Amino acid sequence: MSSTAGQVIKCKAAVVWEAGKPLVIEEVEVAPPQKMEVRLKILFTSLCHTDVYFWEGKDCGERRRGVTELVQSDHVLPVFKGECGDRAHCKSEESNMCSLLEDQHDRGVMINDEKPRFSIKGKPIYHFVGTSTFSEYTVVHAGCVAKINPLAPLDKVCVLSCGISTGLGATLNVAKPKKGSSVAIFGLGTIGLAEPLFGASRVIGVDLNPSRFEEAKRFGVTEFVNPKDHNKKVQEVIVEMTDGGVDRSVECTGNVDAMISAFECVHDGWGVAVLVGVPHKDAIFKTPPMNFLNERTLKGTFFGNYKPRSHLPSVVEMYMNKELEVEKFITHEVSFL
Amino acid sequence: MSSTAGQVIKCKAAVVWEAGKPLVIEEVEVAPPQKMEVRLKILFTSLCHTDVYFWEGKDCGERRRGVTELVQSDHVLPVFKGECGDRAHCKSEESNMCSLLEDQHDRGVMINDEKPRFSIKGKPIYHFVGTSTFSEYTVVHAGCVAKINPLAPLDKVCVLSCGISTGLGATLNVAKPKKGSSVAIFGLGTIGLAEPLFGASRVIGVDLNPSRFEEAKRFGVTEFVNPKDHNKKVQEVIVEMTDGGVDRSVECTGNVDAMISAFECVHDGWGVAVLVGVPHKDAIFKTPPMNFLNERTLKGTFFGNYKPRSHLPSVVEMYMNKELEVEKFITHEVSFL
Ligand SMILES: NC(=O)c1ccc[n+]([C@@H]2O[C@H](COP(=O)([O-])OP(=O)(O)OC[C@H]3O[C@@H](n4cnc5c(N)ncnc54)[C@H](O)[C@@H]3O)[C@@H](O)[C@H]2O)c1
Ligand SMILES: NC(=O)c1ccc[n+]([C@@H]2O[C@H](COP(=O)([O-])OP(=O)(O)OC[C@H]3O[C@@H](n4cnc5c(N)ncnc54)[C@H](O)[C@@H]3O)[C@@H](O)[C@H]2O)c1
Repeated sequence: MSSTAGQVIKCKAAVVWEAGKPLVIEEVEVAPPQKMEVRLKILFTSLCHTDVYFWEGKDCGERRRGVTELVQSDHVLPVFKGECGDRAHCKSEESNMCSLLEDQHDRGVMINDEKPRFSIKGKPIYHFVGTSTFSEYTVVHAGCVAKINPLAPLDKVCVLSCGISTGLGATLNVAKPKKGSSVAIFGLGTIGLAEPLFGASRVIGVDLNPSRFEEAKRFGVTEFVNPKDHNKKVQEVIVEMTDGGVDRSVECTGNVDAMISAFECVHDGWGVAVLVGVPHKDAIFKTPPMNFLNERTLKGTFFGNYKPRSHLPSVVEMYMNKELEVEKFITHEVSFL
Repeated sequence: MSSTAGQVIKCKAAVVWEAGKPLVIEEVEVAPPQKMEVRLKILFTSLCHTDVYFWEGKDCGERRRGVTELVQSDHVLPVFKGECGDRAHCKSEESNMCSLLEDQHDRGVMINDEKPRFSIKGKPIYHFVGTSTFSEYTVVHAGCVAKINPLAPLDKVCVLSCGISTGLGATLNVAKPKKGSSVAIFGLGTIGLAEPLFGASRVIGVDLNPSRFEEAKRFGVTEFVNPKDHNKKVQEVIVEMTDGGVDRSVECTGNVDAMISAFECVHDGWGVAVLVGVPHKDAIFKTPPMNFLNERTLKGTFFGNYKPRSHLPSVVEMYMNKELEVEKFITHEVSFL
């Protein structure tokens, strides 16, 4: 038991006082954990596009006026998806959508007492997507914490908490391309580049930003399409390039037009498209239903269908066994304070 | 060799001279089959909603001014889906969308010489969805003919050429509900009622026509929802009835609103919706993409993903082995002439 057990800890945290406004380092109080909660010391954290999305306030609940993001202790990875272990989704082999710990991005408070564990001089500061890792200390629900190999270097494996695992799982658990197949990836950010492409014979990368193309080559992308370079729809370009469409596509942009293109560029008969990007809350996906009737499949996934507690430790083991190169995803290291 | 081999056969056929106009019995000439074609004597045929759809002219190619539908000989079932055996789809285990024999509904002519085999006093009469079974004799591509058990009674198994096999396959090959699961069926016509419901614990039938409900009970449907009886969307009604949504849904109406409801009523995390109904050609499927991200799957199927030549004979065997009751689908017998 550390000497701070049961005590309020004072520490630094990056707080957003208003959507879209800069993060400010503040001294915060972190209350002790309650039932089914753990308090973590955050040593390293990483950034995902979803952090930016919610920081911009594109999908804010009323309650989350201040957003606090924080730290990591011990040898655990905190994850935005929970796994209580008891509910139907946790018991299903097919899903990681724990219904107890859903809506983390909207909640901002702990489930136990509907209150945040953060405060500044007694004024409540709200949690961020269930993890709040931009703080030296944080309190999270125990269902959102994956216990990992203590030998794993935390400054590296911290990036497995979101983007890389999401991209990896989107392919391994959901899209499941066969050996020798063709794959299109929409959006060559962390998630897009984390698609494991073992065995795919053609990998077509799609991005509006051509500076992503050089980078993407190092990750196994073999051909590039910039939608801005064509007068026709990007799905038509890909269907022509591949004589009917790709076998699999994965959308990692959050843009609804890219989602539609990713679906409409898969081959009829067997094509599977997987949506990963977080769409604008008012976005509508539109397509002629005949595209489905022609035997295409459309699915989506959160966190690559990985259950955080059950599966994330094995993703860390992939890194430890050199099956997954995490270093090449790390472009910058910035100290927190 | 019959004495008519190589000769034109004169026989009766039901001809539509214009979309939506009554079928007229005419004497037609049926030319001998050409390369890769067979001429069949039709003994029994059956009716599918898709026949009505194309008869109404909802999706007509320019060429198909007269539609002829006809017969069956030998011990074969002609099918609107083809299987040439050579193309990528035929070689794929995942699909029955033979690209040689696609667009049968739009073609109206034989592939070999781009001409119809039917005529009236030399004037061409066009084929209907690749089979043209409303005629005493017809010519079809050999890829559209399933050779079946000669002991199978043709007046019964003729209904396996379309609707029943489509419904059966949509469930067995595509939706694949697990034992004890809940299933919603939209549209309680032949296709909807042909869903095999072995093992499903709850089967919710949805139809605008309440007279379908009595009938549907005999087919294993346990609960009914008529969208007209509710002020809210039918998907909301089903989500409430099932505490989050059904495990599987199958849409068999052709109505795009029913397609959207069928998708939105499946459970997040593992729900799979399958579209079977043939939509209006201008219909657009619309849904917030978050419904996919929440780990729902949407697929469609033609002919229940059965390859006609490879798989339809085994569906006939299911009937012969009393695993499939075909008689209860036959409500009327009408003589052709
Ligand atoms: N489903 C999940 O569990 C999950 C988890 C993490 C992140 N995400 C989401 O995945 C998406 C990608 O995240 P990231 O961290 O890789 O983002 P990123 O910003 O690093 O990369 C996104 C890339 O997409 C490109 N892009 C944007 N719009 C495009 C369009 N219309 N066509 C083609 N390319 C386009 C951008 O140029 C950029 O290179 C985001 O929407 C993020 O919120 C989802
Ligand atoms: N995909 C394929 O391979 C394939 C094969 C054959 C038929 N079909 C299509 O399947 C559909 C069903 O065919 P069928 O022969 O069973 O038709 P049917 O006319 O016998 O039955 C359709 C049923 O749907 C109901 N319905 C219509 N609109 C509805 C709505 N909005 N909500 C709820 N119920 C509604 C009708 O009342 C009717 O009972 C048709 O669209 C047909 O063209 C597809």
